[in-house]
Amino acid sequence: MMVIIGEKINTSIKSTQSAVENEDRTFIEELAKNQVEAGAAYIDVNCGTFAGQEAKKMEWLIQVIQGKVDTPLCIDSPNAKAIEAGLKINRNVKPIINSITAEKERWNAILPLALEYNTSLIALCMDDDGIPDEPQKRLKIANRIAEEMVRKGIKLDDIFFDPMVKPISTDNQSAVLTLETMRLIKKEIPEAHIICGLSNVSFGLPVRRLLNTSFFVSAIFAGLDAAIMNPLDNKLMAIIYATEALSGKDEYCMEYISKYREGSLET
Amino acid sequence: MMVIIGEKINTSIKSTQSAVENEDRTFIEELAKNQVEAGAAYIDVNCGTFAGQEAKKMEWLIQVIQGKVDTPLCIDSPNAKAIEAGLKINRNVKPIINSITAEKERWNAILPLALEYNTSLIALCMDDDGIPDEPQKRLKIANRIAEEMVRKGIKLDDIFFDPMVKPISTDNQSAVLTLETMRLIKKEIPEAHIICGLSNVSFGLPVRRLLNTSFFVSAIFAGLDAAIMNPLDNKLMAIIYATEALSGKDEYCMEYISKYREGSLET
Repeated sequence: MMVIIGEKINTSIKSTQSAVENEDRTFIEELAKNQVEAGAAYIDVNCGTFAGQEAKKMEWLIQVIQGKVDTPLCIDSPNAKAIEAGLKINRNVKPIINSITAEKERWNAILPLALEYNTSLIALCMDDDGIPDEPQKRLKIANRIAEEMVRKGIKLDDIFFDPMVKPISTDNQSAVLTLETMRLIKKEIPEAHIICGLSNVSFGLPVRRLLNTSFFVSAIFAGLDAAIMNPLDNKLMAIIYATEALSGKDEYCMEYISKYREGSLET
Repeated sequence: MMVIIGEKINTSIKSTQSAVENEDRTFIEELAKNQVEAGAAYIDVNCGTFAGQEAKKMEWLIQVIQGKVDTPLCIDSPNAKAIEAGLKINRNVKPIINSITAEKERWNAILPLALEYNTSLIALCMDDDGIPDEPQKRLKIANRIAEEMVRKGIKLDDIFFDPMVKPISTDNQSAVLTLETMRLIKKEIPEAHIICGLSNVSFGLPVRRLLNTSFFVSAIFAGLDAAIMNPLDNKLMAIIYATEALSGKDEYCMEYISKYREGSLET
């Protein structure tokens, strides 16, 4: 079933930002607990808005969260120092680093941390030339990342590839290209996971929920098996259960029917 | 863009059944007009509940509808006599016969009508052995139907293939098999259309709208370009506009944005 990474502990969300500023432990603890209860297998932790204090805030957040839940964390930053501070203090089981790319500088800064702290990784299909348009070229980056990681001893099961999606408002074909990339990666590297941001695709357009939902459904059929999302969004969770049943991953529709009995299938 | 066949004039719907029983012309006229205004390119006409009087009721319905709108009709019956009665009285442009199959008896009864009255056809991917499980075998039936129809002078553009979908409650893989069949037909016979019932897939399960929506989205990505559906269902229509934008069929998302401006994007 879908690996859900709860996205709410991110300081780009105003209420989370205030809670971190005011060191409101209870708010963060509740946010962690509620996401876990709603089905999150990981808790994303992002405090990128605190330029200059990111590492300190990361430490504080992780201490608070792991005092409340033992769910593994998804340590989310482009900044190796903040990631390292998080990894050092983390006591919950195997975390994910969010994220690495094939860009030389980022690769060299992040990969040693993954090895030292034995983490999983979210790997974006981009390198120093950016995000290629062609699915085959994105696959090539994924293959290169997989090969080098496996050579270093990382298991494919610990890699979450993000095929990257641009807004369809700037490129009509962007969702189609991303879905094709997912299918290619799923076929060539079936042991690895596929993850994707759900909301970038609709940037610049109205009623984004419609576009995000539609993209999510088609992505699950294309091989998506992990998502950084809001597990407290009941409508989106219901769409996941329905799509997993439809895509043949939910034997006898048992999970779907049990969610219905719990009263959690909202339309 | 999606060819929408309005499904509301079907006597399996109670209110339509009563209107036909009471010869309530205004009710049927409004149903036709409202569906056309909501975006139906065809009006389905089905009075299969009137066993023994189906041909008479079909004539009455078509006279009423074509008195109000000039939208082409989708004459919907497994009964060749009812279809012929409908075709004889029809004055609107090129209708669709719904439906033919590769079953010998049905083929021999329906095909001559399509040729005599120059109609389009909905062709179900089944023959005298039933609906095969394997997508390749369903494709084989589609290919046989296409070849024989083209030999008789029917254009591929006038054929709407229905790949058939069984309920996932009885076969976990049924949606996946149907979507694969769509992709195969789209690839091998790109000039033909692909149509599918949206609701059979969820038979026997709760909150069917969730499953139907998810199936519809994935079907559009797999090549579906026509649907017998309720165009007065604003939520479903909104999902179509979103999915057409995502699947790259709506250039610059113009249609999506214009539907938003009209206030018709409901979530």
